[in-house]
Amino acid sequence: MCDARQEKLDLVKALYPSARTYVRVEDMLDDESVTAVAVATPVDTHYPLAMQCLAAGRHTFVEKPLTSSVETAESLVAEARTRELVLMVDHTFLYTGAVRKLRELIDEGELGSLYEYDSVRVNLGLFQHDVNVVWDLAVHDLAIMDYLLDASPVAVSSCGISNIDGQTENTAYMTMFFEHALIAHVHVSWLSPVKVRRTLVSGSRKMAIFDDLEPSEKIKVYDRGVTFGEGSDSRYKMLIDYRTGDMWAPQIAPTEALRLETAHFLDCVEHGKTPLSDGEAGLRVVRILEAASRSIEARGAPVDIA
Amino acid sequence: MCDARQEKLDLVKALYPSARTYVRVEDMLDDESVTAVAVATPVDTHYPLAMQCLAAGRHTFVEKPLTSSVETAESLVAEARTRELVLMVDHTFLYTGAVRKLRELIDEGELGSLYEYDSVRVNLGLFQHDVNVVWDLAVHDLAIMDYLLDASPVAVSSCGISNIDGQTENTAYMTMFFEHALIAHVHVSWLSPVKVRRTLVSGSRKMAIFDDLEPSEKIKVYDRGVTFGEGSDSRYKMLIDYRTGDMWAPQIAPTEALRLETAHFLDCVEHGKTPLSDGEAGLRVVRILEAASRSIEARGAPVDIA
Amino acid sequence: MCDARQEKLDLVKALYPSARTYVRVEDMLDDESVTAVAVATPVDTHYPLAMQCLAAGRHTFVEKPLTSSVETAESLVAEARTRELVLMVDHTFLYTGAVRKLRELIDEGELGSLYEYDSVRVNLGLFQHDVNVVWDLAVHDLAIMDYLLDASPVAVSSCGISNIDGQTENTAYMTMFFEHALIAHVHVSWLSPVKVRRTLVSGSRKMAIFDDLEPSEKIKVYDRGVTFGEGSDSRYKMLIDYRTGDMWAPQIAPTEALRLETAHFLDCVEHGKTPLSDGEAGLRVVRILEAASRSIEARGAPVDIA
Amino acid sequence: MCDARQEKLDLVKALYPSARTYVRVEDMLDDESVTAVAVATPVDTHYPLAMQCLAAGRHTFVEKPLTSSVETAESLVAEARTRELVLMVDHTFLYTGAVRKLRELIDEGELGSLYEYDSVRVNLGLFQHDVNVVWDLAVHDLAIMDYLLDASPVAVSSCGISNIDGQTENTAYMTMFFEHALIAHVHVSWLSPVKVRRTLVSGSRKMAIFDDLEPSEKIKVYDRGVTFGEGSDSRYKMLIDYRTGDMWAPQIAPTEALRLETAHFLDCVEHGKTPLSDGEAGLRVVRILEAASRSIEARGAPVDIA
Repeated sequence: MCDARQEKLDLVKALYPSARTYVRVEDMLDDESVTAVAVATPVDTHYPLAMQCLAAGRHTFVEKPLTSSVETAESLVAEARTRELVLMVDHTFLYTGAVRKLRELIDEGELGSLYEYDSVRVNLGLFQHDVNVVWDLAVHDLAIMDYLLDASPVAVSSCGISNIDGQTENTAYMTMFFEHALIAHVHVSWLSPVKVRRTLVSGSRKMAIFDDLEPSEKIKVYDRGVTFGEGSDSRYKMLIDYRTGDMWAPQIAPTEALRLETAHFLDCVEHGKTPLSDGEAGLRVVRILEAASRSIEARGAPVDIA
Repeated sequence: MCDARQEKLDLVKALYPSARTYVRVEDMLDDESVTAVAVATPVDTHYPLAMQCLAAGRHTFVEKPLTSSVETAESLVAEARTRELVLMVDHTFLYTGAVRKLRELIDEGELGSLYEYDSVRVNLGLFQHDVNVVWDLAVHDLAIMDYLLDASPVAVSSCGISNIDGQTENTAYMTMFFEHALIAHVHVSWLSPVKVRRTLVSGSRKMAIFDDLEPSEKIKVYDRGVTFGEGSDSRYKMLIDYRTGDMWAPQIAPTEALRLETAHFLDCVEHGKTPLSDGEAGLRVVRILEAASRSIEARGAPVDIA
Repeated sequence: MCDARQEKLDLVKALYPSARTYVRVEDMLDDESVTAVAVATPVDTHYPLAMQCLAAGRHTFVEKPLTSSVETAESLVAEARTRELVLMVDHTFLYTGAVRKLRELIDEGELGSLYEYDSVRVNLGLFQHDVNVVWDLAVHDLAIMDYLLDASPVAVSSCGISNIDGQTENTAYMTMFFEHALIAHVHVSWLSPVKVRRTLVSGSRKMAIFDDLEPSEKIKVYDRGVTFGEGSDSRYKMLIDYRTGDMWAPQIAPTEALRLETAHFLDCVEHGKTPLSDGEAGLRVVRILEAASRSIEARGAPVDIA
Repeated sequence: MCDARQEKLDLVKALYPSARTYVRVEDMLDDESVTAVAVATPVDTHYPLAMQCLAAGRHTFVEKPLTSSVETAESLVAEARTRELVLMVDHTFLYTGAVRKLRELIDEGELGSLYEYDSVRVNLGLFQHDVNVVWDLAVHDLAIMDYLLDASPVAVSSCGISNIDGQTENTAYMTMFFEHALIAHVHVSWLSPVKVRRTLVSGSRKMAIFDDLEPSEKIKVYDRGVTFGEGSDSRYKMLIDYRTGDMWAPQIAPTEALRLETAHFLDCVEHGKTPLSDGEAGLRVVRILEAASRSIEARGAPVDIA
């Protein structure tokens, strides 16, 4: 355990007497028995600390978002590749039963070809001092989206507002465009009277809603959609068939995401595997975040994602 | 009753034997006993028909949206002003108990200075053939917003998608900017597995949610918000106080909106009053709609509203 | 149309000019063209009016409950049988898509052997002057239960209260016992701040909840239950396996119950069929209602049902 | 810490090295430094263990229910009184912000004179081996009811069922009668597909619903009710006015019940105070439980409560 504040280390020592503690990162990295490091610090320190760990030959796990810029994220990914080290980002939701089930539904073609990804993640607080709401909350949605969709967005239009003087954006909206007819939208806020954690993934066959606040039915799959007919009797009515069939809430494996995620990291370290949420995934998400920040400054003007 | 289709007129005659019917608008307007006309036709016919009625000296009520372009809307407003006729647009929600109550809450300062207006209006169907989902559904939200807020948006960024080949946009998102720190967002869709009709109006003092699908508690007022302190102990925690007080659902008057609205139109006609939803209101909404359409084509690039 | 109040008949005449009207039942029954009668009057007049119709050789449809006593209900059933006339009681819910679906689930063994039937039907108002809440509201639940279960209850324990001086019971609870390990409970009230219309039918395999206020998912089937193991490690823990699988909301046919029900009555009249909700069904429900009333007076003492 | 199983004591020692442990109760009671004991064991051992502690002059806290019979509960209460020791029962809900708020609403006359107390506490599991569902779950509702109402029930009618061979009742219903026009009902079950924890307290002025599963609005107060007029135009309609006013969800203090409860016990021990949930409260609840058990055996026949 490494922390610049000695009082934090003392606390750890009391709880876990056998844990080794370090005040300086250098001392920790001098310890040969340390083979992997988890970086859980403010966002703007992710890059220097993770780079220091990788440069010292350590496998590295970094909290989300990977870094605060595309440039630094690319740099980390390159360093890990060169040194053949595991670089993993904490995209926690990829290790939940609900998101795994969504992926399964998409893979099995249950939803058909995808139409839309729409996510709302709002509540009251917790205002961050160093990043705006997009880097704090939307990162979760982008990580889930990156995992679920085969495609990456080619451009983003984003708008946001800071309602409190001198603070970063507390509410933001992001629309992402893809090469084909798919749209994604993310709404995040620290200023909502009620908490919402809801994601819609709709497709040509079925539509799924993931509501993370539901205690037991987190995912609901609706056999609903539209079919367009050939003819048309008049301009007043198109030949549309609205299909409304069963709704189905599959049982979700009650896996503990953090346990699964850390086990996965250790497995990758031990056996040289590539993590599900590897540096590349972290980089792809940072690319969208950086583009969104630029778009917010331009009041929604679309920004291409390289 | 005037309709180009004789079979529709026959149906009316059977139900209301005393109603007079006309196949041609000209014949109706030749009838001196007709002092006011309600135009309930496809959107792109609103302008020519309403203009014909106004030009013939008739007070005119037009379904929403007022017309399909700013130019034609301006033209109608000018014509009504010149001829001193009542021009009213069917912004139905302004005549509901719930929206009236929201206005009351804002007027009384219950919400404080406004932070955000966020509305979601989605369900499965009914696809329109002549207008996209913004002109069909968002028009409701814009009409409510125009009524509730003292300010009009200065620019809009909007994104949309058509998931069905050859159809207009079935899903769209709009962000509106104002001169001060207020943001408005509208999400509309014809392709949602569940029906949502929910509007958040949040302010510095309280936050209100209007859920039109709630059978009895349509409006909930939350005594919630944040207060920022002066000092700061460290970069890890800001001095933010999250206030979570009572929630309150005021009783809503069970007025029938259509009855109230038509009575209001007749009252304006009889006594020469200006309707709550007059031509100007209709025009302001059309201005946003037209700007949104242009922004959608430009993938969210902001479009100024004159 | 027959009504003692001439002003009601005048109203009918205005709406349906071709309808024949009668002030006295005798006059209506003198009309040979009248082959079937629907009795929609206060409960205590059901028996004399229905008996008069049957005695005059008319097929008879009676609003629920069939009559206000077992004796009179038996008498009607006997009269109809002797005269080979159709006697049908208005157990409306039997003609809804939701209750049909529940029956289907039970018939297909989807729920396994039945454990419990539990129904809550409460709201604010409408206080009845002539019958208590059991005869007014529980009759619906008993009709549904009679249709869904193969068995009839052998005894009932019921408790109720009148909170308003001089009025009949406004809130009541009924527990019904069967010959095997099945229990049924009905909770009805005219004095609830919120409206609830929810029925649980649980079985050894699955459990279904019918919520009539849900706009789209009226029936939810839960793959949940318990399984008891053989051994037991200690008194502190039994070997119980709690099964929590998928939830499933089957699509319900959007049939209009009244249309289906009246068509069924006419079909029975024309083709001499026995209605689904025949006099016997009405009698079985009245038997439970009468026993419940006696139990309420005895503060829940169980009353056998013949 | 005293436990017959040495392995449990070892676990405690590892977590709390300074805790003293005992395998035999006698050894613990020989320790003069032990001034108060909390009995957290299976129900049927509550009486012998608590009596042993009281007889040894120790203040005693007992998990709910106090004991498994009226006789033993009376015996504990008498012993504590004679020896002037604190006897407290773990009626945890009395120490929650929500139940405190309900009491406040009643005390302030917000609800008017009380009409009904109706509670549902059902979910899937956890089957108990030594007591039925009434002694396991209804005890919570009876403790809350005892705290909220000034009156105690004079009789109870209860019905229950065991759907699993050889097990105790897993589902039960209890109706309680009072000296005045108030009714109470409790529905408890270990065999429900969905979890419900909802209590209605209705009165002549307002009605309150306490939903313990609501994350933020646990208590809702409805300004609803009925008023009966003097006259009556006809038998078809009574002069009833249905009042439906605002709904209000008061902010609930986020107190941690167990912390408050244990602090209260220590305060009573130190300063010789009488606990809110004293032995008498525990005894009153056991009286209802015992009467309910007798009523269940008699299929709902009412049993007087001494």
